[in-house]
Amino acid sequence: MTKLKSQPAVAFQGTHYAFSEIAARKYFGNEIETLPCRQFSDIFKSVEDGDCLYGIVPVENSTTGSVYQNLDLILDSSVTVIGEVQLRIEQHLITNPGVQLDNIKVVYSHPQALEQCRRFLSAFPDIETIASYDTAGSVKHIRDQKLLHAAAIAGREAAEDNEMQILKEEIEDNSQNYTRFHIIAKTFEPPENADKTSIIFSMKNIPGALFKSLSVFALRDIDLLKIESRPLRGKPWEYFFYLDFAGNMQEEHCRNAIRHLEEITSFLKVLGSYKSAAE
Amino acid sequence: MTKLKSQPAVAFQGTHYAFSEIAARKYFGNEIETLPCRQFSDIFKSVEDGDCLYGIVPVENSTTGSVYQNLDLILDSSVTVIGEVQLRIEQHLITNPGVQLDNIKVVYSHPQALEQCRRFLSAFPDIETIASYDTAGSVKHIRDQKLLHAAAIAGREAAEDNEMQILKEEIEDNSQNYTRFHIIAKTFEPPENADKTSIIFSMKNIPGALFKSLSVFALRDIDLLKIESRPLRGKPWEYFFYLDFAGNMQEEHCRNAIRHLEEITSFLKVLGSYKSAAE
Repeated sequence: MTKLKSQPAVAFQGTHYAFSEIAARKYFGNEIETLPCRQFSDIFKSVEDGDCLYGIVPVENSTTGSVYQNLDLILDSSVTVIGEVQLRIEQHLITNPGVQLDNIKVVYSHPQALEQCRRFLSAFPDIETIASYDTAGSVKHIRDQKLLHAAAIAGREAAEDNEMQILKEEIEDNSQNYTRFHIIAKTFEPPENADKTSIIFSMKNIPGALFKSLSVFALRDIDLLKIESRPLRGKPWEYFFYLDFAGNMQEEHCRNAIRHLEEITSFLKVLGSYKSAAE
Repeated sequence: MTKLKSQPAVAFQGTHYAFSEIAARKYFGNEIETLPCRQFSDIFKSVEDGDCLYGIVPVENSTTGSVYQNLDLILDSSVTVIGEVQLRIEQHLITNPGVQLDNIKVVYSHPQALEQCRRFLSAFPDIETIASYDTAGSVKHIRDQKLLHAAAIAGREAAEDNEMQILKEEIEDNSQNYTRFHIIAKTFEPPENADKTSIIFSMKNIPGALFKSLSVFALRDIDLLKIESRPLRGKPWEYFFYLDFAGNMQEEHCRNAIRHLEEITSFLKVLGSYKSAAE
């Protein structure tokens, strides 16, 4: 079922008020329908099957790095990246009303959120940490179960929506903690204001290979915005390169650069052109 | 207290039989003393204070990416990287003897290990996952507490050492799952067989900046082995670059490349030269 363009449906991982859903509303506005998915792969299936026009997936966190799982899913799927959005991630310690810090014996949250609050949690070695599927779902769990010796780590919206208490604000280790999300869709038409393109390519580790591949951009005065090499699974000394550059695939000099790059790569995929997110 | 060179003491994060300790034995041999540390920062303190000659820290996993936390600690500390070792990470589902799959209500492990086994765990939505400080410690916990409705996820050595049962082998999502570790020390002398150097640098996002910085290596036929850009905390549009290249700082053409690079960077630190690890 295809939804109306005025009310796009967006698939995201987690339960309502997860950071992914908040990021989707930042990108599309509040009037969207959203579809909670248990796993990232469900988001891709939902977009490929046409159940949702769009999906949103985290691809990079400033503290924990690239989310390879989603970069792999984008690579293996037929969707393209049509947008990006960045969200400052503030983690709060959330409890049922009236609970105090020394009541807490257990803390629930997503493994990445627990990792981002490692320094805070290490001050309480007796508190057990329980990994759950998402941050907002942890808040709902301790509310529904009326747990008075438990806390959850999640964003402000999850606390407010569940009428729960924020016991400690901003407990993440790094106050400059933000996540970058990609908006995915089945369309292959870049938006008109697209100013950024993401590609993945691989090449044998021949001398100067990476330098040659970057020269196709430098020769055309195209700025690089991100580059990351990643060893290819099962192929030591071969690499994937994730590269973002300024420009879109409607522009001739960008298409020329990609054609030039294809001459020297063993694999190349354009993930999409889109408008870059403001921080 | 400085230990004898023939029996170097190596600080690692986790409890005995953690992957870090196994990697340390792969690098140094079985005759070493090891010092378990609760947090990564404790490893750096132990090496800086001279309590251990060496430390070992994971810096990259093929599934979950760079371990920025340790790259940051290396950057902020006075230690240098003097070696690297790579370890294939096999995760097993481990229980007390006699426990069967349908007895299990809860699974304990390190957040990264839980993440690496996400696909396996998602087939059992009713099993609760509990995040702990390390994989091997989770095995010890379910053994000491004689938990018969629990399992741990950890490596083979942790099961064998605790005389526990491996219920399911190799449950990690990606069978090409390996982790790269750095060996850190206070010495500034690269080993004689060093063939790889790691650096961190930053530069403003001026046009072609990255291309210019890589040209200092290409102009001297120095191969790049890894490159990764990372946004600088609190400074949008400025980046750290993590770069590994072939060669060591005793070689004149490498020193020349670094001197050239310093002309165009706003920050540069050589983390160390060392012998690259075989896979």
